[in-house]
Amino acid sequence: MGRKVRIFDTTLRDGEQTPRVAFSPAQKAEIAAALDSLGVDAIEAGFPVVSAGEHEAVSAIAAAGLAADVYGLARSTRRDVDAIVDAGLSFVHTFIATSSIHARDKLGMSEEAILGAAIDAVEYAKSRGLGVEFSAEDATRSDRAYLRRVYSAAASAGADRVNIPDTTGYSTPEHMAGLVREVAAAARVPVSVHCHNDFGLATANTLAGIAAGAASAHVTVNGIGERAGNAALEEVVAALEFLDPEATGSGGRPRSRPRGATRIRTRRIHDVSLLVSRMARVQVQHNKAIVGENAFGHESGIHTHGIVKNPLTYESLDPRLVGRRRWFAAGKHAGTHGVERTLAGYGLSPSAPELAAILERVKALGDSGANVSDMQVVTMAAEAMGREPPRRMVRLRELDVSTSAGQTPHAYVKLAIGDADHGATASGVGPVDASLAAIQEIVGGIYETRIADYAINAVSGGSDALCEVTVKVEDARGNAARARSVGEDIVVTSVQAVIDGINEIALRRGAERAAAPRRAKGRARA
Amino acid sequence: MGRKVRIFDTTLRDGEQTPRVAFSPAQKAEIAAALDSLGVDAIEAGFPVVSAGEHEAVSAIAAAGLAADVYGLARSTRRDVDAIVDAGLSFVHTFIATSSIHARDKLGMSEEAILGAAIDAVEYAKSRGLGVEFSAEDATRSDRAYLRRVYSAAASAGADRVNIPDTTGYSTPEHMAGLVREVAAAARVPVSVHCHNDFGLATANTLAGIAAGAASAHVTVNGIGERAGNAALEEVVAALEFLDPEATGSGGRPRSRPRGATRIRTRRIHDVSLLVSRMARVQVQHNKAIVGENAFGHESGIHTHGIVKNPLTYESLDPRLVGRRRWFAAGKHAGTHGVERTLAGYGLSPSAPELAAILERVKALGDSGANVSDMQVVTMAAEAMGREPPRRMVRLRELDVSTSAGQTPHAYVKLAIGDADHGATASGVGPVDASLAAIQEIVGGIYETRIADYAINAVSGGSDALCEVTVKVEDARGNAARARSVGEDIVVTSVQAVIDGINEIALRRGAERAAAPRRAKGRARA
Repeated sequence: MGRKVRIFDTTLRDGEQTPRVAFSPAQKAEIAAALDSLGVDAIEAGFPVVSAGEHEAVSAIAAAGLAADVYGLARSTRRDVDAIVDAGLSFVHTFIATSSIHARDKLGMSEEAILGAAIDAVEYAKSRGLGVEFSAEDATRSDRAYLRRVYSAAASAGADRVNIPDTTGYSTPEHMAGLVREVAAAARVPVSVHCHNDFGLATANTLAGIAAGAASAHVTVNGIGERAGNAALEEVVAALEFLDPEATGSGGRPRSRPRGATRIRTRRIHDVSLLVSRMARVQVQHNKAIVGENAFGHESGIHTHGIVKNPLTYESLDPRLVGRRRWFAAGKHAGTHGVERTLAGYGLSPSAPELAAILERVKALGDSGANVSDMQVVTMAAEAMGREPPRRMVRLRELDVSTSAGQTPHAYVKLAIGDADHGATASGVGPVDASLAAIQEIVGGIYETRIADYAINAVSGGSDALCEVTVKVEDARGNAARARSVGEDIVVTSVQAVIDGINEIALRRGAERAAAPRRAKGRARA
Repeated sequence: MGRKVRIFDTTLRDGEQTPRVAFSPAQKAEIAAALDSLGVDAIEAGFPVVSAGEHEAVSAIAAAGLAADVYGLARSTRRDVDAIVDAGLSFVHTFIATSSIHARDKLGMSEEAILGAAIDAVEYAKSRGLGVEFSAEDATRSDRAYLRRVYSAAASAGADRVNIPDTTGYSTPEHMAGLVREVAAAARVPVSVHCHNDFGLATANTLAGIAAGAASAHVTVNGIGERAGNAALEEVVAALEFLDPEATGSGGRPRSRPRGATRIRTRRIHDVSLLVSRMARVQVQHNKAIVGENAFGHESGIHTHGIVKNPLTYESLDPRLVGRRRWFAAGKHAGTHGVERTLAGYGLSPSAPELAAILERVKALGDSGANVSDMQVVTMAAEAMGREPPRRMVRLRELDVSTSAGQTPHAYVKLAIGDADHGATASGVGPVDASLAAIQEIVGGIYETRIADYAINAVSGGSDALCEVTVKVEDARGNAARARSVGEDIVVTSVQAVIDGINEIALRRGAERAAAPRRAKGRARA
């Protein structure tokens, strides 16, 4: 692979234009640093004239000494270009709309006036010493002959790069490819593509633009941005680095390392996705490519069967390459291989008929619409194998929580651990936090556990809708358990999930203890 | 447009294979009815051999008298085909894997044995009177010559349709187009495409397959399914019905009515999306095309400016065509046009300098990372215009909530409304539900309001993370207010959001009352 595709990240500009998303200057700086270490070539840090805070945030990023080129957005006016210089930036992304709808209904300018403003802004920016990328806004809906004139004039005026924005997400791969070829011929400077996702085609349009000769892709982390968002960095980069069905062809072994099409350190993708999701407060849906919770999760029997034998059967990308891990869930679609693997983690090896009986019970529980936790699978297995069912070491005896406006929420929790009761009180920022703090107070010393992650899945419909809580509990020995609980009361549901997670850890520690002497005995006999 | 594209919906089969998703039989029946009235041509209701509950659910849908063809999934075995007949279905979707990875590592079968099983299953299904669609699983990674033989043999054995699954989401638009042409030539029966979204290309690959001659698209609502999911019904249908950049070309006016490429009633798309999201408990991310919360939301000044003058400037699709409405938010990217429009809704018409002052304050608040509510915009406007700031008619005086394991949560709330205090107690399924019920108890009679919608946005990171609550409050006169609150305590944050929503309604009712006599006076003077 020769020339690298330039990744121009606009999470901090177009991404922040997501309705109801605003980053503080400190958040912008943190995201910029993360993007820089991810390896993006250019960071569009913001639109300085928007507000005083924006100006301050952009200036701080410009002064941070990042390896990436740092851009600011400017309309095609001298005032906006001046704001870029004032913010200490060396690069400007300047734009003006060229479609007839925008010219008439938004700008109220003639085609000639728009052309003149574009040329003037580019010349002025160059005279102020800036590197310039010029965009003809709404390019994909602009008259082609006029568009060629604008891009050609911008390049002649000194633009170092020109960008084709599909402002309303109205393009298709063929359409974008044709446009890139026309613009490249007219402008004779490197071309970028900037695709929106209104019809779900942003990634495909971006890749088609690159294939047609574009040198650079404008992207955002998690695809955030105006309306349905922008082309997602993780999808565009993963496709450029790992996808090539024609070359791998029959037998289709996916690549085991990046092709080197970009400078992105792909293993950092997931961490950056989590950072942006948290700061933007825009959740990534479970079924999102590359970075969604489920992207490398498997439940159905046919799939877990295949994955256990060879992950390539149902994965087109090794999850580690993008900083992920695969996981398995049990439920109505479960198969023998997934259940067998789960039980092995608890030291259980049922016979084939026992396994069939366990699977039947797992499916029956799954049929009710429930998820099936590891604890439940182990319990069913113990019964099918004629063993003592595993004891739930930790059980909830009492829970009492109070929240009042203006006062600190506090909770009292009593747990039975083995045969002894333990109680604790704690306060927290909310009733859930107080309850979990009380649990931690009790069990932290006994099982060395901590709550490594806590998440409420989105709840909609009404205040009486079911809520879903997932937690990750870890102990000091490296055991980790994910537990999930669904219920109406968010406090009780959260407490239940954490207790389930602690019980899984306790069970695994029991299995470890049981296995250790057996192995020792085996050696002694040999 | 001649031939319609056949929409084969597999929300209830591949969609349900989303890890941790399981529909109850009643939910499956409700979704099937909704899909039928949406106008899909075929519904894959499930995989009957998976479990007893699945068999029951599929049987009920088969017997429901739907207009759509109802399919069940079957491996290429007589037992699986018999299960389809036993469930009362008339159509089977039968499959067997054809890639070398699957043949060797999953099935442990030779190419000839796989071919034989495929032929036998199709012949047997036809002999049992079923309509047959045959899939070569992992087709996109199978040897082409072998794949042509399999599809040709399946068609010769009687398959009515053949489907090309991109099982691991490893295809690109060009690759899928080429494959469709080859398979169509080999099989000489109608071809379907079934695309997964592992690289974010499922919609583009599906459209490329259709353009290359495929007659049918396999899709799921919201794109749910294994891993990163399947091609999304809403994206594929919206593109087929409304997208054509080449034809609309310069000036690019999007279509104002469906092209008639499918039989889908596009205005019902959003309702079906909400139904599936609720039942699968898989939230649609805000920046999802067509059905995401933000798909038709606007905040930035440049965009609201354009939209207010002509929605076509920044929308490539009229939201009503897919059952949506556009909305606006205020914040750091806000512009004069959006703020002006918001204030007009409250009967306020500031002068140009007043508007500039208001906008500056909106941006300053937005810079802190906050959203700006209507109430805040109106307050800033009143101050800038030298008027009495609007009174928050409803204020929280006291809130006290208790939740205990095994007992019904209950709340006491005291609100100041105007100059009088009102208190109420209520119970609910959880502490939030109890608190909101107490508020409703107080204000329901005064403002005729009800909480039309309540949602917690997903929270992740820890139990002390910020949570975000959005509510929609309506009154009996058709006023509606959306309010959003962010905080650490989920109960207090929920209460705050609802009170904010009620205050917005109260403010609008005040503006209506104030406007009515003014208008009457105006007429009297004229």
